[in-house]
Amino acid sequence: MRIGVLTGGGDCPGLNAVIRAAVRKGTELGHEFVGFRHGWKGPIDGITQPLNWEEVENILDQGGTVLHSSRTNPYKVDGGVEAIKSNMSKLGIDALIAIGGEDTLGVAKKLTDDGVNCVGVPKTIDNDLNATDYTFGFDTAVNIATEAIDRLWTTAKSHDRCIVVEIMGRHAGWMTLHAGMAGGANVVLIPEVKFDIKKVIAQVQERFDADKATIVAVSEGALSADGDMILKDGEVDAFGHVKLGGVGDWIANQITEGTGRETRCVVLGHTQRGGTPTAFDRVLATRLGLQAAEAVHEGDFGKMMALQGTDIKRVDLSEATAELKTVPAQRYTEVEAFFGV
Amino acid sequence: MRIGVLTGGGDCPGLNAVIRAAVRKGTELGHEFVGFRHGWKGPIDGITQPLNWEEVENILDQGGTVLHSSRTNPYKVDGGVEAIKSNMSKLGIDALIAIGGEDTLGVAKKLTDDGVNCVGVPKTIDNDLNATDYTFGFDTAVNIATEAIDRLWTTAKSHDRCIVVEIMGRHAGWMTLHAGMAGGANVVLIPEVKFDIKKVIAQVQERFDADKATIVAVSEGALSADGDMILKDGEVDAFGHVKLGGVGDWIANQITEGTGRETRCVVLGHTQRGGTPTAFDRVLATRLGLQAAEAVHEGDFGKMMALQGTDIKRVDLSEATAELKTVPAQRYTEVEAFFGV
Amino acid sequence: MRIGVLTGGGDCPGLNAVIRAAVRKGTELGHEFVGFRHGWKGPIDGITQPLNWEEVENILDQGGTVLHSSRTNPYKVDGGVEAIKSNMSKLGIDALIAIGGEDTLGVAKKLTDDGVNCVGVPKTIDNDLNATDYTFGFDTAVNIATEAIDRLWTTAKSHDRCIVVEIMGRHAGWMTLHAGMAGGANVVLIPEVKFDIKKVIAQVQERFDADKATIVAVSEGALSADGDMILKDGEVDAFGHVKLGGVGDWIANQITEGTGRETRCVVLGHTQRGGTPTAFDRVLATRLGLQAAEAVHEGDFGKMMALQGTDIKRVDLSEATAELKTVPAQRYTEVEAFFGV
Amino acid sequence: MRIGVLTGGGDCPGLNAVIRAAVRKGTELGHEFVGFRHGWKGPIDGITQPLNWEEVENILDQGGTVLHSSRTNPYKVDGGVEAIKSNMSKLGIDALIAIGGEDTLGVAKKLTDDGVNCVGVPKTIDNDLNATDYTFGFDTAVNIATEAIDRLWTTAKSHDRCIVVEIMGRHAGWMTLHAGMAGGANVVLIPEVKFDIKKVIAQVQERFDADKATIVAVSEGALSADGDMILKDGEVDAFGHVKLGGVGDWIANQITEGTGRETRCVVLGHTQRGGTPTAFDRVLATRLGLQAAEAVHEGDFGKMMALQGTDIKRVDLSEATAELKTVPAQRYTEVEAFFGV
Repeated sequence: MRIGVLTGGGDCPGLNAVIRAAVRKGTELGHEFVGFRHGWKGPIDGITQPLNWEEVENILDQGGTVLHSSRTNPYKVDGGVEAIKSNMSKLGIDALIAIGGEDTLGVAKKLTDDGVNCVGVPKTIDNDLNATDYTFGFDTAVNIATEAIDRLWTTAKSHDRCIVVEIMGRHAGWMTLHAGMAGGANVVLIPEVKFDIKKVIAQVQERFDADKATIVAVSEGALSADGDMILKDGEVDAFGHVKLGGVGDWIANQITEGTGRETRCVVLGHTQRGGTPTAFDRVLATRLGLQAAEAVHEGDFGKMMALQGTDIKRVDLSEATAELKTVPAQRYTEVEAFFGV
Repeated sequence: MRIGVLTGGGDCPGLNAVIRAAVRKGTELGHEFVGFRHGWKGPIDGITQPLNWEEVENILDQGGTVLHSSRTNPYKVDGGVEAIKSNMSKLGIDALIAIGGEDTLGVAKKLTDDGVNCVGVPKTIDNDLNATDYTFGFDTAVNIATEAIDRLWTTAKSHDRCIVVEIMGRHAGWMTLHAGMAGGANVVLIPEVKFDIKKVIAQVQERFDADKATIVAVSEGALSADGDMILKDGEVDAFGHVKLGGVGDWIANQITEGTGRETRCVVLGHTQRGGTPTAFDRVLATRLGLQAAEAVHEGDFGKMMALQGTDIKRVDLSEATAELKTVPAQRYTEVEAFFGV
Repeated sequence: MRIGVLTGGGDCPGLNAVIRAAVRKGTELGHEFVGFRHGWKGPIDGITQPLNWEEVENILDQGGTVLHSSRTNPYKVDGGVEAIKSNMSKLGIDALIAIGGEDTLGVAKKLTDDGVNCVGVPKTIDNDLNATDYTFGFDTAVNIATEAIDRLWTTAKSHDRCIVVEIMGRHAGWMTLHAGMAGGANVVLIPEVKFDIKKVIAQVQERFDADKATIVAVSEGALSADGDMILKDGEVDAFGHVKLGGVGDWIANQITEGTGRETRCVVLGHTQRGGTPTAFDRVLATRLGLQAAEAVHEGDFGKMMALQGTDIKRVDLSEATAELKTVPAQRYTEVEAFFGV
Repeated sequence: MRIGVLTGGGDCPGLNAVIRAAVRKGTELGHEFVGFRHGWKGPIDGITQPLNWEEVENILDQGGTVLHSSRTNPYKVDGGVEAIKSNMSKLGIDALIAIGGEDTLGVAKKLTDDGVNCVGVPKTIDNDLNATDYTFGFDTAVNIATEAIDRLWTTAKSHDRCIVVEIMGRHAGWMTLHAGMAGGANVVLIPEVKFDIKKVIAQVQERFDADKATIVAVSEGALSADGDMILKDGEVDAFGHVKLGGVGDWIANQITEGTGRETRCVVLGHTQRGGTPTAFDRVLATRLGLQAAEAVHEGDFGKMMALQGTDIKRVDLSEATAELKTVPAQRYTEVEAFFGV
């Protein structure tokens, strides 16, 4: 078989490790590979690059993706799906390995239904994909955020201050939950549990009263319970929700006003997405890539590779994209044990 | 209740995170804590230290154990068990949380049978404890070893050489398996699969012939299939086994002789055991500590806290120590995919 | 002698290393130490803490300052200087070691003139203090910023984008200069050299035309040459200067508009100030601390410890605070060599 | 001009940064580049590789050398020098940039005398080259060793033990001096100051008596004062000197015997040589590379680029190789301040 590989969606440490492993295993099983560049844009526009062992031999430890990425969706491009089929036919491509998040895998699911041989590999630093215990990239991102919190602690303590750290996660609080727990944050705010800003201020004040500094870890998608969030530039959205990316600053301002102590927010942003993957992510990504090549080899299409316990299993692509995996209440209870003084 | 806490066996990143979480949760549940110093030596000799929130508040990110450790076994000390019971009675201690590996948990199991209220938390950088998917400390150790391999690659490539890296693991090859896969080692040798030195030399030679450098990752407990290993100081043990700690040097010498290219061995040693834990290990250790406090609170003794998938479960201490968890054949097949040129 | 020690100004990795070394050396030379908490607020309000070897033995690798810090200036507090003299007299303190930046050392200079025995140790992550080749904290901060740029590169390349990274430095561009050079930034903008936004956009466009991603490194204090910067919230300051902290976002927006490609800004912020110091900073801070204790021992007051070449020298405090050490034109020429495609 | 570039001697983080900067600057100045592979073996055997901006654009952060290295010395190869001249003539090479340590630069000096246009860039992780304040690679190596000591401390403290760490440095103790100071080692042993093993044991015992763990940092080239070192395999060399690489183990054994407490040695070895360079080393290497291109451009041959204070200067190659730069007595006094309890 000739197998096409593409990476879609946001940058994520471990993408190159998946590509490398799939190419190695698939080649060993007798197949050939072609790289499609820029996510789904690649097969739509027929943009390819060579993808044999030589090209991927030394990329295991490199962040990013040698195939480049995009957020192009063939179902939102006129004639996108037909173009993919036509280009695959022209290039003699029998199957696709699509590495991506909810959107990319959703496309892979639909394409499978539309007769294109697809296998999916789950990717998101947000860890919010269903049917897999963890996604690669998450561990790296959590380590980066944890190291940032470690650093912020020394400044918070030296200046007897509160510092707010805003962590990625629009719809799910996994990164903030894990980095908050690992960094010993005193308040952890995630999209799954609406927060009460008065309670947050009281928690910080209680710690100031006990001569203690405070770290507040907040997901970019966390929401105020009473819809009272006001954007820093004066706008309020229709639902009283703060603009994404602004919640940390808003909370810092509220704490400053509420406690009388200058409180700053640090937005970690894109530094959480890049760089060399941790060992955990390299191992997970490699195992997923090996399994993806085997699934294609066996003609087991329409499947997503998934981590379950310590095993790599294959699950239906529909399962993976059925719903967002959010933080369960019990896991939030665990970090709450460390709230307060 | 008054709860004693102790840490036994070798150093392991995450011990302090367990202690901190257990004390926090147990205190919240209304209990008091006492620290026993130097592993089982503490309760035998009645060596204690204060262990309330203040003592453990800032230790989450610190390697090592504030309770110190030892390899003392009360069942190998005259009157050891009676001394523990007597000291617990004198100090008004109702239950023990024992954090340790096979030996420490084995003692906890026996003590439970002998009427002492024990709860166990599994700890080993070797990841070879049964009934839990992973043990904390393992992820940190694997990251340290992986970073070392990353570094060694640049030297191996610059000098067109083979470098052997010896990684911890006397009886199980988990660390070498994961660090070898994460670091892109070309040969991975573990205790579970006896190796053929002639085949190893041939693999390295094949890579030299293709102008490629090589990294060989070997567990300190890996064994030659034909018992032909000779210690560097001239001794051969009765089973033809190389002295622990010497297998890497032996392999490097054999490769030097077999290929004519100077090959060095780097023994990572104790650097793998210490330092700040990764986010993964901090989260796992914290969750185990929380659960241990809850188990004691519920009087659920004789249990070990275990990670299964994404959940913390309680399993019988006997399960945990029944047998060593070694690397299954299928996992070794995964790294073999990357052997060769 | 009884020697008081204080740390003033912003957090900076290496403060604890200075304190530790000064206490060790001073004790060896027969002196006693007292810690003043919260910068100059300590001696003004008589807030002290014990400061013998036991307290500082294990703080070498810790970021922040065990003495806490503040920006209090005794010359801006009614009766501040008299309070310091009176408290020193009451506590039997003969001399002060003041560790801090321009403000802290400026106070030490004035106090010396006013008859208080002071010795200064220069501290700023900005590296903008005169009379010393480098200040501790700078190397750590530059490494943090460089690692951030390394991470951002993988995302910029994977998505064929430009990313702007805003680095600390209000009046001097040292951090941006060094991190920009170390991270391979394609455009480096510092306060010392006003930038032309049209030229910046053209540089980025030229790289896009060559299918290359771009990293723009900008100091928070960098200024547009033609005063056309507009604050993101609609305000323009009297000098056409952008609000500190907003220049990166402004540039990112301009590039987005100018090139039609979405460009984001990452503001590194306080993560650059905290955490464990690098080896360079630990060595420099330790050597400065040793020398400070010796200067006090010899009664050589009114001096600042300084790194010159590989030596620690003593210079007059007035020299250190005479003017800001900014980036010379020649050093900027060095990074310009890497601008463009 | 056509300029050849080569890298000689042991691996060192920053080599690629020099190559990249020289090629960038030299190209800007109108010159062409050719890479010679495997150190001096390259020009002797005429082994070249393309070396324009495209080849070196993305190597700044990579350890090792894309030109590969060797320890070949043309003055020890029959007809070596003539071969170099002949190959340079054939390839139209006008000048060489040689990046290396004492040996490589010594050859560059002789070749200059023999009429070959050479410019040298100093490289050694040992920092023992004359006429330059620091060499790139040293800072990276010291940071790796310091991080190792940080890790070893947690284990030493948890087990109330002494750990010996053996650090690179055969003839000069710079790495051990700086890493020992940065890591807070209690005993630091370097080649420049012969040690008394009885005194070392007494120092460790004194700390055990005070319930304190100990880290001993020792250079691989450190020597016992009374020539009583015995190799671990039973051999004693003619001068009573321990075999290089064995001194750490020997000291650990002596401490074990002398104090009755099991003491281990960790040999850091080649992990100190590889991996991505620190920001300090990337900046230094980049500035040296820029200056080397300018020196060639100006025809200023026979010179070595050197760091003096904060400036890059050109010094005569003969100065650089005149004598080894060893640790001065005063610098050793600084670490001695921290010996003892």
